[in-house]
Amino acid sequence: MSILVVGSVAFDSIETPFGRVENVLGGSATYFSTAASFFADVNLVAVVGDDFPQQHLDFLRSREIDLRGLTRSSGKTFHWKGKYGYDLNEAQTLETHLNVFETFKPQIPSAYADSDYLFLANIDPDLQMDVMRQVKSPKIIASDTMNYWISSKPDSLKKVIGEVDILIINDAEVRQLSQEPNLVKGAKKILETGLKNLIVKRGEYGVLMFTKTSIFAAPAYPLEEVFDPTGAGDTFAGGFMGYLANTGDTSEAGIRQAIIFGSVMASFNVEDFSLDRLKRLSYGEIEERYRSLKAMTHFEGLPAMESPL
Amino acid sequence: MSILVVGSVAFDSIETPFGRVENVLGGSATYFSTAASFFADVNLVAVVGDDFPQQHLDFLRSREIDLRGLTRSSGKTFHWKGKYGYDLNEAQTLETHLNVFETFKPQIPSAYADSDYLFLANIDPDLQMDVMRQVKSPKIIASDTMNYWISSKPDSLKKVIGEVDILIINDAEVRQLSQEPNLVKGAKKILETGLKNLIVKRGEYGVLMFTKTSIFAAPAYPLEEVFDPTGAGDTFAGGFMGYLANTGDTSEAGIRQAIIFGSVMASFNVEDFSLDRLKRLSYGEIEERYRSLKAMTHFEGLPAMESPL
Repeated sequence: MSILVVGSVAFDSIETPFGRVENVLGGSATYFSTAASFFADVNLVAVVGDDFPQQHLDFLRSREIDLRGLTRSSGKTFHWKGKYGYDLNEAQTLETHLNVFETFKPQIPSAYADSDYLFLANIDPDLQMDVMRQVKSPKIIASDTMNYWISSKPDSLKKVIGEVDILIINDAEVRQLSQEPNLVKGAKKILETGLKNLIVKRGEYGVLMFTKTSIFAAPAYPLEEVFDPTGAGDTFAGGFMGYLANTGDTSEAGIRQAIIFGSVMASFNVEDFSLDRLKRLSYGEIEERYRSLKAMTHFEGLPAMESPL
Repeated sequence: MSILVVGSVAFDSIETPFGRVENVLGGSATYFSTAASFFADVNLVAVVGDDFPQQHLDFLRSREIDLRGLTRSSGKTFHWKGKYGYDLNEAQTLETHLNVFETFKPQIPSAYADSDYLFLANIDPDLQMDVMRQVKSPKIIASDTMNYWISSKPDSLKKVIGEVDILIINDAEVRQLSQEPNLVKGAKKILETGLKNLIVKRGEYGVLMFTKTSIFAAPAYPLEEVFDPTGAGDTFAGGFMGYLANTGDTSEAGIRQAIIFGSVMASFNVEDFSLDRLKRLSYGEIEERYRSLKAMTHFEGLPAMESPL
């Protein structure tokens, strides 16, 4: 089954303690669709400027990502410039040039309208709502957002959250959205709006998923080399949705496995700048890391034992 | 089998966003032995002043903790005063009065000399070494330390680590001790000294255990109310060693289960000030939370699946 993603395709300029790159391929929809392409067919809706080079299109096509929804507008492609310190958990934004992304109005090609899996990357919640109106009856809708929309368009965002199946945000966003300093309380408050699955990304500490009746805790794969965390969240979402679309299993067990695949994809992505690690990634490596995470989290059930007191 | 713990028994004055207490029962050996007493017999070696009240002795005795090693010296009991902000991960020390603890020279009662499990709480590494010399042939020795000893007595500390089976420290201490910003690299460097098990406490993010051939990742139990994190690390260690001593199972599987029991005990402890939550804790509650952690971390193995590319 196919996935539709709506988000950004961008140029990134990034500085980390381990190096620096200028104008490399980035953007939420780029990371998402590349990760998802390891598992399922992906339809991409985004906009680029007339400066967007053929080589990047060739790369996306090599991943069999459908680019009929990628519009080229006159002007420059969205450009983000950021910096990370040794604490790689948070980026410092140095420059944001929205360029052609500023007037992005996603038009879903008719060929994409019956996509079964829809991912709304971090864009204006009014546009996210507009996209949902254009897609017939997806089996699963997941969405992301960011602090900017939580503070500037809370009502629109709440409407979006009211219609999606899965919200994938980070821990700071849970606290901001719920106005609760405690993560568990905040998550419960968000679930009270009717949302079925809340996935909380915690960077190097892994992922928590909250439902009305359960919590799932998945560790991040422990890495010796974290080179550049840019795109980790979207790569997670891509692996996650890709696995769901591949199997069609949206039971809680299936969603848990999808979270592990998402974590595995994110763990590879941060090992190099841009999409460089995903470009040289094999499916065998993905399977190996899944097995490692399974082994790393295993412990036996409650032993029969008596307390001395 | 019995556990011997050597550490501090103290008065704490603590302020958190949720309340404030003055001169309540605290200290590493107190938290450790109370938690361990749910699983095994505990022998405690520490020192208190002549201001230490009967009610605290009565409480420790009610947990069947052997107090023949608790010396009473003339002077005041160790007193720590600290404060936490909304980020409960790190305490700000406001006052430290070592008092009788300043000249503490642990004397192990002969009745304790054949203890099978030894926990060296965070004290001067020279004293930790001295304690090891006084105990015949423990089956398992675990130790803790802190930033102060890592910087002031690195050579003594390295000797201690060279003799223990399990080192239980937090992530910042791993980085400081190994001089590696990356936790996984730092852990590997510490294991290169010959240490068999390195347990890394990460507060609300759980625990990682590193051995030469494996990593185990355990989440912290997600809590809606974290009242006071004081003593969480020692309570973890108490539950951990308590379970090992109860079962005698020091295989990797047994150590992993012990880590879960340690995490469960720590999760209860932070729900109230001082040892108040442990005082009203039942063994049934411990079992229930162990089962919850098992359910929260479960996911199925690698599914049979083909990548589309």
